[in-house]
Amino acid sequence: MRVGFVGLGQMGKPMALNLIKGGHQLRVFDLSTNAVSALVDAGAAPASSPADCARDVEAVITMLPNGSIVRKALLGDDGGLTSLPKGAWVIDMSTIHPFESDAIAEEIERKGFPFVDAPVGRTSDHAVRGELLILAGADQATVARLAPLFDCMGSETIVTGARGRGIRVKIVNNFMSIALNALSAEAAVLCEAIDLPLEEALKVMMGTPAGKGHFTTTWPGRVLKGDLSPTFMIELAHKDLGIALDLANQVTVPMPLGAAAREVYSAARAAGRGRQDWSAILEHVRTVAARTDTK
Amino acid sequence: MRVGFVGLGQMGKPMALNLIKGGHQLRVFDLSTNAVSALVDAGAAPASSPADCARDVEAVITMLPNGSIVRKALLGDDGGLTSLPKGAWVIDMSTIHPFESDAIAEEIERKGFPFVDAPVGRTSDHAVRGELLILAGADQATVARLAPLFDCMGSETIVTGARGRGIRVKIVNNFMSIALNALSAEAAVLCEAIDLPLEEALKVMMGTPAGKGHFTTTWPGRVLKGDLSPTFMIELAHKDLGIALDLANQVTVPMPLGAAAREVYSAARAAGRGRQDWSAILEHVRTVAARTDTK
Amino acid sequence: MRVGFVGLGQMGKPMALNLIKGGHQLRVFDLSTNAVSALVDAGAAPASSPADCARDVEAVITMLPNGSIVRKALLGDDGGLTSLPKGAWVIDMSTIHPFESDAIAEEIERKGFPFVDAPVGRTSDHAVRGELLILAGADQATVARLAPLFDCMGSETIVTGARGRGIRVKIVNNFMSIALNALSAEAAVLCEAIDLPLEEALKVMMGTPAGKGHFTTTWPGRVLKGDLSPTFMIELAHKDLGIALDLANQVTVPMPLGAAAREVYSAARAAGRGRQDWSAILEHVRTVAARTDTK
Amino acid sequence: MRVGFVGLGQMGKPMALNLIKGGHQLRVFDLSTNAVSALVDAGAAPASSPADCARDVEAVITMLPNGSIVRKALLGDDGGLTSLPKGAWVIDMSTIHPFESDAIAEEIERKGFPFVDAPVGRTSDHAVRGELLILAGADQATVARLAPLFDCMGSETIVTGARGRGIRVKIVNNFMSIALNALSAEAAVLCEAIDLPLEEALKVMMGTPAGKGHFTTTWPGRVLKGDLSPTFMIELAHKDLGIALDLANQVTVPMPLGAAAREVYSAARAAGRGRQDWSAILEHVRTVAARTDTK
Repeated sequence: MRVGFVGLGQMGKPMALNLIKGGHQLRVFDLSTNAVSALVDAGAAPASSPADCARDVEAVITMLPNGSIVRKALLGDDGGLTSLPKGAWVIDMSTIHPFESDAIAEEIERKGFPFVDAPVGRTSDHAVRGELLILAGADQATVARLAPLFDCMGSETIVTGARGRGIRVKIVNNFMSIALNALSAEAAVLCEAIDLPLEEALKVMMGTPAGKGHFTTTWPGRVLKGDLSPTFMIELAHKDLGIALDLANQVTVPMPLGAAAREVYSAARAAGRGRQDWSAILEHVRTVAARTDTK
Repeated sequence: MRVGFVGLGQMGKPMALNLIKGGHQLRVFDLSTNAVSALVDAGAAPASSPADCARDVEAVITMLPNGSIVRKALLGDDGGLTSLPKGAWVIDMSTIHPFESDAIAEEIERKGFPFVDAPVGRTSDHAVRGELLILAGADQATVARLAPLFDCMGSETIVTGARGRGIRVKIVNNFMSIALNALSAEAAVLCEAIDLPLEEALKVMMGTPAGKGHFTTTWPGRVLKGDLSPTFMIELAHKDLGIALDLANQVTVPMPLGAAAREVYSAARAAGRGRQDWSAILEHVRTVAARTDTK
Repeated sequence: MRVGFVGLGQMGKPMALNLIKGGHQLRVFDLSTNAVSALVDAGAAPASSPADCARDVEAVITMLPNGSIVRKALLGDDGGLTSLPKGAWVIDMSTIHPFESDAIAEEIERKGFPFVDAPVGRTSDHAVRGELLILAGADQATVARLAPLFDCMGSETIVTGARGRGIRVKIVNNFMSIALNALSAEAAVLCEAIDLPLEEALKVMMGTPAGKGHFTTTWPGRVLKGDLSPTFMIELAHKDLGIALDLANQVTVPMPLGAAAREVYSAARAAGRGRQDWSAILEHVRTVAARTDTK
Repeated sequence: MRVGFVGLGQMGKPMALNLIKGGHQLRVFDLSTNAVSALVDAGAAPASSPADCARDVEAVITMLPNGSIVRKALLGDDGGLTSLPKGAWVIDMSTIHPFESDAIAEEIERKGFPFVDAPVGRTSDHAVRGELLILAGADQATVARLAPLFDCMGSETIVTGARGRGIRVKIVNNFMSIALNALSAEAAVLCEAIDLPLEEALKVMMGTPAGKGHFTTTWPGRVLKGDLSPTFMIELAHKDLGIALDLANQVTVPMPLGAAAREVYSAARAAGRGRQDWSAILEHVRTVAARTDTK
């Protein structure tokens, strides 16, 4: 395919290179002339602007740092949409705010172009090897048509089913993994501070929800099917968190996430959930977040 | 074996029943006469006090709500240690503060008795089925000698290697799983609030550290071997958390753990770790918790 | 003076009315024609756009919900700057992100116009009565020239001394008062949950830093002059927070701010500040926030 | 009066000295013989145990680090109550957990002795000068009878009206002032990070609830009389917190309390309070903490 590629950073550059290797004809744009040169050496045509980059292509791909830059590259005075041929695809692979993505997508669709949000997972190493995870905000048919592109850049494409879901699942997934990283560090440093070898603790935790998570262990049999009868009661979980926090404070391991969690369980107890299953924390958070508009 | 069992609550009762089923001779004590009756019906001898319970046994087991109750049951005026035969084991299976466990253990050891902390994992259903996870604060030889007891109550015994480590790993494991539960709820409710089907998100997350955790994915190849070179930089992780938090605040999904996490990453950036791998958060928390005693 | 006023919301409308009452000639613009009508009834001239509004005036004032709207109103295709007479003032009284304010200001200054950020404090009631607090990002001479306007809208103008400081102090002040409100609620609800009459507690707290704050009590004699010798040690403060948190968790009063504070003190202890004065928390936070760029 | 004084630490020692200066006859006990010697030099009689210390006195005062030490000193085998003359007062001036204080008090009262919790406010400097704030958990008549003691140690005695309220108000007051200290540091460091001179910001904040607190400013006219009509809406406060947090994260000033506060406002918005007055945060926290026992 003929592809315009805007944004040749740490991720964009290897992605574009893999498209060239895959046999696609690329026209590339980036503010950094060095980045452009590297791609030109590999066979790409240089573009002088996003508009120039989108001329005569079948798809334009953006891989940029934030929503306002994506907006400018596509919808600005000199943006891709000013020259993009009718029927060509707009594929934004950047990680941006989902509502900004929605707004950009709607504007592009109003101009008559099909838009797909397709942010990527994994690391720059994966980008180099063409083994990214692609989270396509599109249905099966659309993904099938774009597979020649996606398959050059990634080794797995998730079909989320609808426009906007790619960027949504990206943000939720990153939120969870990034925050979990900080929580894991609190647990690990607590281990070290109480002279418990980390490997010993990891060995145990890998066999429990501590290491395996709750999505496929404690939740499916209980809260996800509406059963809140206790296997482990919220009030006991709350008690154990209190012990862990007191311990951590004695050995001066600050645990801000752990401390926040204790207060969530405390609120769940106040809300009458003390004797419900601990998976009912999901139900509790749902209640807290549920918009009530008359008070 | 002849066993004294103190504490016949939701967990203690099925554990004691399984010891009887396993052929052990039990003398039992609990403040609730109903609980005692149930065990007596199953063949146990009733005791009038912890002291009475520990008379003539080879091991006394406690399964009680907190450290001061354990202390009283073992070391009080009418406690088990007043009558326990020389050489008999003291096994505390309760979940209590590790430092309280240490203090009780040391006092008991000073009186010449061997002490093992052996708290249990899993749920009351597992207790009924004799399928608990037993976290033995003991070495291999000790666990081998107590296996006839442990194997009646649990289906798996972790040998942590030293006294005090059973209760330590219990508290760390519970901390991690309980706090992770609250964090998972934040991610799940965010999904729902932005019209992203939870199953769709879970499908993706089960293939990433969001669902698989960091202990066996991102940490071993990087921070655990001292390599902080980036596959995904802390400053990008920080940026993504900011997007998720802004999104969550727009759709009024309160995320106290997520908000705390963002500030941890912010502190890591301030500490000069912005361009390190995200697994370096472990190193950051280690630094924050490291005692410096001269300032 | 001849003034263009853009943004006639809950605050902007009474502010504009007070300018008219003060004898100024107003041209006004708002997307709501109702809001415009109200001002026209009071003597203002209606404008069809921000550009129209800024025609022929000595100063244009914006009072708008966020930075991108302010940017559009001033610097957009149809923005005030397209028609503003040379030498006229641009005064943004909105509460927006300080860095957005800076960027807008710089662009405006590059076009040759003087810019003042002058956000307001207090409430809509004060706006009606012309008793706002005006936080002028300007020097004394500039404020003197704009006093005829400011004095119609407010009863007090703070001269912060330089462009950008008005909006900065607004954000810091609002941050502090808004977060303090939530912290105060935690303390008050804890009172109620432990049967301590709130008035009784308030009576005590109004005589201590709990009610009077630290800025003028504990800080000036210690941390603000570099003296960290203890009047009340951080490790005792940390201990007391622990008691309060345990108490609150027992009576299920969730205290997320309190819990976060305990971890801050824990980190300060880890950093070797346990025996420093509690005002040294300022020094601790400074250290945590200090950018270190080599790690 | 003849007084037994147990606990001669940083606070207890100057308090005991001031009692001697005030003409009282002291018998003193502490584990540190140095501390005892200092008091003996000043005219006190040394005691060999708490029991010895309480012999023949009209009041026994405890000033000790935590509840279990207070319990042991008063109710232990060698505790003060074993020798205390009938009718003598027990006055605990320590800062301990209120529920531990209650339990100790009840046990003492069951033995027929009057108990007063009278923890102190202010610093060790104030203790030296006899200028402590005494928070007496007692009614007016009791305080009048004990005034000869209190007036030697403190310059102000708050009569809270009932046993248990002294220690309660102490804990609430300390919670509020200690957490507020950490919050104030976040605001101050944010100032410094955005090049806003701290004095400039303090000048402004001392005139607003940021510096004056909410107890006597925004609350009395609104939430404390049940009026939630807005002077400043929760949703605007939430928006401003978001700006402050984004700003702080950009300049890497970690603000864990601020971040927690933003989520509280988010929850309040979800609960339908977005258009209520910001003082309604008190009402929101009340609702979250209100025990609901059927779910």
